[in-house]
Amino acid sequence: MTDQMGAEVKVAVLGSGSWGTTFANIVADAADLRTAEGHKTEVVLWGRRASVVDAINESSENPDYFPGVTLNEGLRATTDPAEALSGARVVVLAVPSQSLRENLAAWRPHIPSDAVVVSLMKGVELGSLMRMSQVVGEVLDFPEERIAVVSGPNLAREIAERQPATAVVACPHEETAVLLQDLFRSAYFRPYTSTDLVGVEIGGAMKNVIGLAVGVAEGMGLGDNTKASLITRGLAETTRLAVTLGADEHTLSGLAGMGDLVATCSSPLSRNRTFGEKLGAGKTLEQVVAETKQTAEGVKSSESILELGWANGVDMPITESVVKMMHHDLSPAQALVAFMSRSTKPERYGV
Amino acid sequence: MTDQMGAEVKVAVLGSGSWGTTFANIVADAADLRTAEGHKTEVVLWGRRASVVDAINESSENPDYFPGVTLNEGLRATTDPAEALSGARVVVLAVPSQSLRENLAAWRPHIPSDAVVVSLMKGVELGSLMRMSQVVGEVLDFPEERIAVVSGPNLAREIAERQPATAVVACPHEETAVLLQDLFRSAYFRPYTSTDLVGVEIGGAMKNVIGLAVGVAEGMGLGDNTKASLITRGLAETTRLAVTLGADEHTLSGLAGMGDLVATCSSPLSRNRTFGEKLGAGKTLEQVVAETKQTAEGVKSSESILELGWANGVDMPITESVVKMMHHDLSPAQALVAFMSRSTKPERYGV
Repeated sequence: MTDQMGAEVKVAVLGSGSWGTTFANIVADAADLRTAEGHKTEVVLWGRRASVVDAINESSENPDYFPGVTLNEGLRATTDPAEALSGARVVVLAVPSQSLRENLAAWRPHIPSDAVVVSLMKGVELGSLMRMSQVVGEVLDFPEERIAVVSGPNLAREIAERQPATAVVACPHEETAVLLQDLFRSAYFRPYTSTDLVGVEIGGAMKNVIGLAVGVAEGMGLGDNTKASLITRGLAETTRLAVTLGADEHTLSGLAGMGDLVATCSSPLSRNRTFGEKLGAGKTLEQVVAETKQTAEGVKSSESILELGWANGVDMPITESVVKMMHHDLSPAQALVAFMSRSTKPERYGV
Repeated sequence: MTDQMGAEVKVAVLGSGSWGTTFANIVADAADLRTAEGHKTEVVLWGRRASVVDAINESSENPDYFPGVTLNEGLRATTDPAEALSGARVVVLAVPSQSLRENLAAWRPHIPSDAVVVSLMKGVELGSLMRMSQVVGEVLDFPEERIAVVSGPNLAREIAERQPATAVVACPHEETAVLLQDLFRSAYFRPYTSTDLVGVEIGGAMKNVIGLAVGVAEGMGLGDNTKASLITRGLAETTRLAVTLGADEHTLSGLAGMGDLVATCSSPLSRNRTFGEKLGAGKTLEQVVAETKQTAEGVKSSESILELGWANGVDMPITESVVKMMHHDLSPAQALVAFMSRSTKPERYGV
């Protein structure tokens, strides 16, 4: 792969939502740096809607998500997956978690058999309880050295505005992670490498669930001590699950675990936190769903993650509360009482 | 100690600043619960200023820090350290870190020789580079089973208002930690036990330094991704130092490490974050110092912590930047460039 990546590379980003658009823009900005070093990178973004694709091609803007932000002029968009994927050495996937399998099956004939596939998605598939990289591996029948993930404290809007950010590029084969790191590194986006795919993916999936819980606390008017406790215990819950599934616990203390969780739980830009906040403030689930434009991944993923925990004997009290609030009519006040009234213990109990 | 603590206990809290006052109020609220269980706890708060002491005794209020918040009516205050300390079984210390040694030397004749001493302070002594519990041990010549610390995500204002919060009570002897846990547990304050004094104290001291750095980023207008990255790398730096000094790394992933750090870095109530924010927004150090009412512990502690790191061969880039900004005229913009331009590495480098 090294030689082929060196001189000329085509990167296809599939999904023109907020994160897909932003990531394509990162790669295009990174490509400008690489051009100065004698490399050539072509970046093509696939989107379903012609209006978005046209706006990107004609005015370097995604008016749906980032009106006013000028994207890299080298970024091209298309509604044709075959065109986007033709000759791509790197395929970046950025669609809603629960639609990945269906999308991937449709795209499969066009994905070059020697491409590297990078997942930006954060979730666990309902039913199969698979992580996103596992779904990719199964549908495409790709070996693990050509499946990677990127995750970290990456609120799309801030990165679209080219504010400084960091992330983790993970692949069990370090060589792949290093090549991708080089392809994605720009003046404002700083990727670190990791070989711990499981830790990075579980961190990403769980942060949406914990983000919902923290949003609920915010909506109830609770303060920063309470939210910090919830974030801390939420990361402990994430770490328990990830380590049981084979992750290195340090990954969860890093950018794709703690970093992503803290960014999500701090920011009014986070969809999951905002969803929880409205619920905590007293709206009904139906009202909140009706008001929400983009998917709040944690609402569905909380169910598959809880099942994954149960299947592996992991105690997941916060996830359980979120599932009950999102799907079984537990009120935020009841959930809070349950959280605070667990018996006092040594802090490391269950670790 | 168990027998003596059981029936009737006097707790002296020394220091009527925001956290000392709040903690005395926690113990008084906890005492009401214990009364229902047949125990009796007396709580006396020592303060230097007669006006504060009188207000607490006459109207159950500390008008300097919490105007409008009604403190527990059972809480008594005095300006006489001998009166506060007479017969105390538990002595809680809540004075600025750098004045502890001097205060303690003056109080020493009045501290019962069999008391348990609890430090609420977060810092490292300039010159000696000792943690607060080490200063207590040296000045009082007390054994380690009677020296404990309490730390966690504990913004004083929120707890004074009786919002839910958690903390860690640490003592190398678990029996002491369990006894104190019982004495400090109220309906809204939930202490967990730990035996890792070093981890809890380094977590507490470092969060003030990282809080300053995050405040600077906030003041510069940087977003939640950048702040989350700084918090994550700051905790990694904290963990490196603590583990080198003998701590359990899990302590730093818990309430007294990550929890306290996240609360401090999220809250406009944090003195260290606010101090940094003003500096990041373009004020000079002199202007910020002049505007600051209570001590921002991190300003002085950053110097002793950096020395402690150097003395133990620990790489501390964020602390070093803070020291340079606070004491050697490094501008926030220069510090940011230095942070973002470190070479890209595997995430776990140096752990």
